[in-house]
Amino acid sequence: MTTFSRPAGRAADALRPVKITRGFTIHAEGSVLIEFGATRVLCTASVEEKVPPHKRGSGEGWVTAEYGMLPRATHTRGDREAARGKQSGRTQEIQRLIGRSLRSVFDLKKLGERTIVLDCDVLQADGGTRTAAITGAFIAAQDAVDTLLASGKLSATPIVGPVAAISVGIVEGTPLLDLEYVEDVACDTDMNVVMTGAGHYVEVQGTAEGAAFTRAEMDELLRLADKGIRELVLLQAAALKLP
Amino acid sequence: MTTFSRPAGRAADALRPVKITRGFTIHAEGSVLIEFGATRVLCTASVEEKVPPHKRGSGEGWVTAEYGMLPRATHTRGDREAARGKQSGRTQEIQRLIGRSLRSVFDLKKLGERTIVLDCDVLQADGGTRTAAITGAFIAAQDAVDTLLASGKLSATPIVGPVAAISVGIVEGTPLLDLEYVEDVACDTDMNVVMTGAGHYVEVQGTAEGAAFTRAEMDELLRLADKGIRELVLLQAAALKLP
Amino acid sequence: MTTFSRPAGRAADALRPVKITRGFTIHAEGSVLIEFGATRVLCTASVEEKVPPHKRGSGEGWVTAEYGMLPRATHTRGDREAARGKQSGRTQEIQRLIGRSLRSVFDLKKLGERTIVLDCDVLQADGGTRTAAITGAFIAAQDAVDTLLASGKLSATPIVGPVAAISVGIVEGTPLLDLEYVEDVACDTDMNVVMTGAGHYVEVQGTAEGAAFTRAEMDELLRLADKGIRELVLLQAAALKLP
Amino acid sequence: MTTFSRPAGRAADALRPVKITRGFTIHAEGSVLIEFGATRVLCTASVEEKVPPHKRGSGEGWVTAEYGMLPRATHTRGDREAARGKQSGRTQEIQRLIGRSLRSVFDLKKLGERTIVLDCDVLQADGGTRTAAITGAFIAAQDAVDTLLASGKLSATPIVGPVAAISVGIVEGTPLLDLEYVEDVACDTDMNVVMTGAGHYVEVQGTAEGAAFTRAEMDELLRLADKGIRELVLLQAAALKLP
Amino acid sequence: MTTFSRPAGRAADALRPVKITRGFTIHAEGSVLIEFGATRVLCTASVEEKVPPHKRGSGEGWVTAEYGMLPRATHTRGDREAARGKQSGRTQEIQRLIGRSLRSVFDLKKLGERTIVLDCDVLQADGGTRTAAITGAFIAAQDAVDTLLASGKLSATPIVGPVAAISVGIVEGTPLLDLEYVEDVACDTDMNVVMTGAGHYVEVQGTAEGAAFTRAEMDELLRLADKGIRELVLLQAAALKLP
Amino acid sequence: MTTFSRPAGRAADALRPVKITRGFTIHAEGSVLIEFGATRVLCTASVEEKVPPHKRGSGEGWVTAEYGMLPRATHTRGDREAARGKQSGRTQEIQRLIGRSLRSVFDLKKLGERTIVLDCDVLQADGGTRTAAITGAFIAAQDAVDTLLASGKLSATPIVGPVAAISVGIVEGTPLLDLEYVEDVACDTDMNVVMTGAGHYVEVQGTAEGAAFTRAEMDELLRLADKGIRELVLLQAAALKLP
Repeated sequence: MTTFSRPAGRAADALRPVKITRGFTIHAEGSVLIEFGATRVLCTASVEEKVPPHKRGSGEGWVTAEYGMLPRATHTRGDREAARGKQSGRTQEIQRLIGRSLRSVFDLKKLGERTIVLDCDVLQADGGTRTAAITGAFIAAQDAVDTLLASGKLSATPIVGPVAAISVGIVEGTPLLDLEYVEDVACDTDMNVVMTGAGHYVEVQGTAEGAAFTRAEMDELLRLADKGIRELVLLQAAALKLP
Repeated sequence: MTTFSRPAGRAADALRPVKITRGFTIHAEGSVLIEFGATRVLCTASVEEKVPPHKRGSGEGWVTAEYGMLPRATHTRGDREAARGKQSGRTQEIQRLIGRSLRSVFDLKKLGERTIVLDCDVLQADGGTRTAAITGAFIAAQDAVDTLLASGKLSATPIVGPVAAISVGIVEGTPLLDLEYVEDVACDTDMNVVMTGAGHYVEVQGTAEGAAFTRAEMDELLRLADKGIRELVLLQAAALKLP
Repeated sequence: MTTFSRPAGRAADALRPVKITRGFTIHAEGSVLIEFGATRVLCTASVEEKVPPHKRGSGEGWVTAEYGMLPRATHTRGDREAARGKQSGRTQEIQRLIGRSLRSVFDLKKLGERTIVLDCDVLQADGGTRTAAITGAFIAAQDAVDTLLASGKLSATPIVGPVAAISVGIVEGTPLLDLEYVEDVACDTDMNVVMTGAGHYVEVQGTAEGAAFTRAEMDELLRLADKGIRELVLLQAAALKLP
Repeated sequence: MTTFSRPAGRAADALRPVKITRGFTIHAEGSVLIEFGATRVLCTASVEEKVPPHKRGSGEGWVTAEYGMLPRATHTRGDREAARGKQSGRTQEIQRLIGRSLRSVFDLKKLGERTIVLDCDVLQADGGTRTAAITGAFIAAQDAVDTLLASGKLSATPIVGPVAAISVGIVEGTPLLDLEYVEDVACDTDMNVVMTGAGHYVEVQGTAEGAAFTRAEMDELLRLADKGIRELVLLQAAALKLP
Repeated sequence: MTTFSRPAGRAADALRPVKITRGFTIHAEGSVLIEFGATRVLCTASVEEKVPPHKRGSGEGWVTAEYGMLPRATHTRGDREAARGKQSGRTQEIQRLIGRSLRSVFDLKKLGERTIVLDCDVLQADGGTRTAAITGAFIAAQDAVDTLLASGKLSATPIVGPVAAISVGIVEGTPLLDLEYVEDVACDTDMNVVMTGAGHYVEVQGTAEGAAFTRAEMDELLRLADKGIRELVLLQAAALKLP
Repeated sequence: MTTFSRPAGRAADALRPVKITRGFTIHAEGSVLIEFGATRVLCTASVEEKVPPHKRGSGEGWVTAEYGMLPRATHTRGDREAARGKQSGRTQEIQRLIGRSLRSVFDLKKLGERTIVLDCDVLQADGGTRTAAITGAFIAAQDAVDTLLASGKLSATPIVGPVAAISVGIVEGTPLLDLEYVEDVACDTDMNVVMTGAGHYVEVQGTAEGAAFTRAEMDELLRLADKGIRELVLLQAAALKLP
C-alpha cells in the first residue's frame, strides 16, 4: 500500500501546528482563538446568571454552544445564515455536538443556576472546524470558570477534567490524523472523535463518504485519534498555565 | 457485574420483534411500515423525475430523506414542527443521517437524473426510530427501484447491496442491543450503527450521555451492533422475497 | 339527466365503506384510525393540563385541532410543511374547521381548565380527508373524555352529543354523497357539512369550483349530507360501544 | 318570538348604507373604496403581465386576491402581520375566499396570460369586511378589465357577470341581513354568502358560533342573503355606470 | 445655473399642497390622513396600557411606530410584506426613524407606564412618505394625548412641543424642497430633515444617490428644510385648532 | 463651557489609534482587520462572477455589503441573529449604509457584470463599528479590485476615489470626534458622516438621542468629521502602499 502524500510533508499521524491565544477579545469571561494550521476559530465563553426553562428551579446550571462561520471563512463565499433566516442542518448538528461535548466534563450541580454559552465562530476554515471548536471551547470554559471562582461566585470548580476533539479519516486508503480541507474533500471516511483527558470517549462520529469502512480501518482511526487527543490535552494544559 | 434486567425478559443481545409490512399505503412507489417492538415508522419512497440543482445536467440521480414524528407518537405530545415553522436540530440531524445512509448503497450514476425521496414518519415511538427508519427505508427504496425496473425506466439496479441500522447502548453498565425507550432514557452511552450487508460501517455515532465510555465498552457495543444488523439484513431479504 | 357512474358501482347516496379502529396507537388518551374507503386519517386526542392564554383563569377548558398530511399520502408527493417552514392556507383552514366543529359539542365549562388537542394526520388521501378527520376526532375525543372520567379528573362528561361530517358535491350534474378523489377533481360544486347527532348544522361550506349552483341543487346536497351524517353517527356509536 | 333591536333602528332585512367610490387611489388599474356602514375596504385591482407557475404556457390568465387589515382598523389595535412575520389563518382563509369568488366570474382563457391581483385592505372594520371586499373587488376588477379593453390589450371582456357577497346571521333568535360588529359578536350563527348576478351560489359558508342551527333557520338566512345580494348587484351596476 | 423645472410650475422652495384630515377613522385615539400632494398617509395613534419589557416597572411610558405601504400605493404593485413574511430593511429603517422622531418630543416620564403606537400606512405614494408620516403622526399623537387628558388618565401633557419633517434634495444641480416621486428618482442628493418647533434638529439623513455633495449644497438644503418645516409646524397648529 | 473629559486623556478632536491589517484571512480577494481603539471589524471583499437580478444583462456590476456582530463582541452577550432567524432593523440599516457608501466610489459600468460583496463582521465592539466597517471595507474593496486588475479580468479600475467614515457626537455639551462606547451611550447627539477623499459628503446621519441640536452644533460636528476623515483617508492610503 502506498501512502497518500500530505501537504507540507506532514506525517500521517501528525497534528497540524496548533496555536492557542487566550484573551483574544476583551469582553467575554473566556475568549480563545484556536488555530489548527490555517483553521482559526474564535471560542468565547459567556456566563449568564439564568438557565433555560428545563433547568429553572433545579439548582443546576447549563452549558450550551452556538456555532457559526463567517461568510468568507471559506474558499468561496457562503450565505450568511442570519440573512437567509435560518441555521443550516450542518450548523445545528455541530453546535449540538459542541454543547454535548462540553457538558460531558461539567458537573452541572456544582455550576449552580447559571449558564455558560460557548460561541464558536470560524474566522478561517481549512478543515476540522468542529474539533478545533471543541478543543478551544474547553479552554474558554475553563477561563470563564476561573473568573467565577476568582469573583467568589463559585467556591469549587464544576469542571471534572479536560475534553478535546480531533478528526481522522481515510484518504486514498491511508488513515490520517487531523484532516485539512484538501484531505477532507478527498476522503472516503471521516471520523470526529471527542475524548476526555482520561482517554475515554465522549463522542465518536464516523461517516463513510465513499466506500464503507472495515473494522480494521476503524481500529486504526481510533488509534490515531487517541494519539492526537493526548497531544491536544497537553497543549490545552500548557496554554492554561500561561498567566 | 450484574446485568440490567430488560423489559419482557429480553436478552441483552436480542432485537425486539421486527415486523415489516410492504405496501402499507397505496400511492408511493415504495411504502413500508416497519416495527421494532412498539416503535412504528412509515417509510415511503417517492420517485421524482428531477434532481436538485447540484445534480442538474450531471447524468446522476439523488437519494434524500425527510423525517418527521407525529405530535402524539410519544408519551407526551410534542409540538408539530409545521406549526412551529421549523424543523428541530434533532429532526435535521436524523434526516441527514438517513439520506447519507441510503446514498451509501446507491450508484447514483445508474439511477439516472431522478430523485428518490424517502419519507420516514414515526407513527409511534418507543426508542430507535432513526435506525428503524433506515432499515425500513432501504426496503421502500428497493420497492421503488423494482417499480422503475418493471416499467423499463431503469434497465439495471442502482442498488449495490442492503443497508440496515441498529442502536446499542450501555445501561447500568450492561451493553444492550436495540434500546427501547425506557432503556434509552436510562443509558449512559448510546450508539447508532449503520452497516452494509457486507458488514462494513456506513455510520457510527456514539454519544456518552453520562460517563464517557472506554475502548472495551465500544468494542462490545460494536459486536452487538454487528450481530443485530446481520439479523436485520436477513429480515429485509425475507420481506423482499414476499410477493 | 343521465347520472354520473361512480367507481365500484357506488350509489349516488351511498357512503364509502367506513372503518373505525380505536386504540390505533398506544400513547394518546384517544387514538382512532378512521377510513372512508381509501382515505385514512389517524386522529389522536391528547389531554393537556393547561389552557391557552385567552382561557387562563376562566375555569373553562379548550378544544383545538391540528391537521397534517404525510408528504406521500397523495398521488404525487407534496412538500413537507415542516420543511417548508409554514403551514399552507388550506391546512390552516382545515384545522380551524376541525377545532370549531369539535368545540360545538363540548361544554367548555365542564371540561375544566385543560385542553384536548386533536391531531388529525392523513396517512393516505382519497378525498374527504377533513370530514373523515372530524368524524374520527369525535371518537378520539370521546375516548379521551372517558379516560378523564375513569381517572376521576372529571365527574361528568363535557360532551353534549356527537358530531360528524361528510362531503357532498355535484359531478357532471349528479349530486353525490361522500366524494372520493376522482370525483372531487371532477366536481362543479363541493360542499362540506358538519352536523350534530340531533341533525342541526354546525358548519356548511359550499364552493362552486366550476359553474355556480342553484338553490335546488343546494337543497339536494343538504338532503344527501343529512342522510350520510345520520349513518356516520350510528357508526360512531357502534364503534364506541366496543370494549 | 321577539325580534332583536338593531342599531339605528335598522330592519332585520336591510343592508347598511353602501357607498362605492371608484378611483379612490390613482396608480391602480382599478381602485374602489367600498363602505358598508362604518366598514371601509380599499379594493385595488392590479394587472400584471405574467402568471403564476401553474398557468405558464397555458394561454390562460389568473385572478388572485390578498387581504389585509390596518392594525388600528379595529376597536383595539391588532398585530401588524408584516411585523409578526406571517399572515394569520383567518387572513389566509379570507383571501382564498375572495380569490375563488372573483375567479368564478372570470373566463380565464379570455383574460390571456396575465394576472389580476385584487388587494383588499380594511381601513376601518365594523363587521362584514370579507363580503364588502368581494363586492368591491368586483368593481375594481371591472375597471381593470375596462382599462385593458380601452388599451386594446383585450378585445372582449373575460368577465361573465357580476358577483357580490353579504353576511347573514342569527342574533338572539332573529335572522338578520348584513351583520355589523356588535351583532357579529353576539350572533349564534354567522353565514357568508357569495352569489352571481344570476342568483346562483358561488360560496356558502355557515358557522354555528353558539347553538347549531336548523334547516328552517338556514332557509331564512339564505332568503335574506338572496335579497341583500340582489340589492348589491344593482348598486354595483349603478356605480359602474358613473363616468 | 439653470434651474430644474418642477411639475405644476412649483417653486424650488415651495411645499406641495398639504392637507390634514383629523378623525379619518373612528376607532383610534388619534387618526389623521395627511396629504403632501398625491402622497397620502394614514397615521393612527393607539394608546395601550402596557409598556415593552425594557420599560416595565420604570414608571415611564414608550412611543413607537410601525410603517407600511399598501401593495398598490405605488406605480407598480409591490409585494405585500405580510405575505412575504418579513418587513424590508427600508420599512424597518423608516419605522425606526418615525419612532425616534416622535419620542424626541415626548417626556416619557410624564406619559406614565403606557405606550402610544403610531401606525403610518401609505395609501398612495408620490415621494416623501416618511416625512409626511412623521408630520401626520405628531398630530395623531397630540389627539391621543388630548384623549388621555380629557379622560383624566393624564393630568399634564407629556408632549414638549411639535415635530415635523420634510425632504429636500438636489435635482440637476437645483436644490428643491419637498421632492415628489419624479424628482426623487432623478435626484443626486436626497435629505430628510426632522426638526422641532423650536427649529432644532432631531434627525438629518442626507444621502448622495449620485455625485457626493458639497458643504455649500448641504447648507442650501438645510436652509430649504428649515423653511419647509416652519410652514409645516404652522399647518399642524392650524389643524389642531379645529374642533 | 467645561469640556467632557475623555478616556485616556484623548483630545475632543482626536481619533482613537487606528490599526489596519491587510490580508487578515487568506481566502477572500480582500481581507482587512480594522481597529479604531478597541473596536475591531473584519472586512472581507468577495468577488462573485454574477450580479443580482436587477443588474442582469445590464453590463454593469454591483457592490453590496452585509454586517454582523459576533454574539460576544459586546459587554453582554447578544442574540445570534442566525439563531433568532432574522437580522435586526439595526443590522439591516447598517449594511444598507455600508453598501451605499461603497457604491458611491464605484463606477459600476467599469466593474463589469460581477459583484463585490463586502462582509463586515464585528469581532469586538467599542463604539463606531459602522464607520470602522466603511473605512475598512474600502481597503478590502481596493485589494479585491487589484486582484481583478492583476488577473486581467479588469483592465482599468472601477474605483473613482477613496471613501471613509467617522462618528461625531455631543457629550455633556462637548462636540467630540470618534465616539467610543462609553461616550456613545452618554451622548445627546450622534452623527455618522461618510465622505469621499475629495471632501464631499456621501452620507450624513445625525440623530438627537436626547435634546435636539442646533445649527451651530451641527456645524461644529461637521468640522470635526471633516478633520477625522482627512486623517482616515491618509491612513487608508498608507495602508494600501504596503506590499
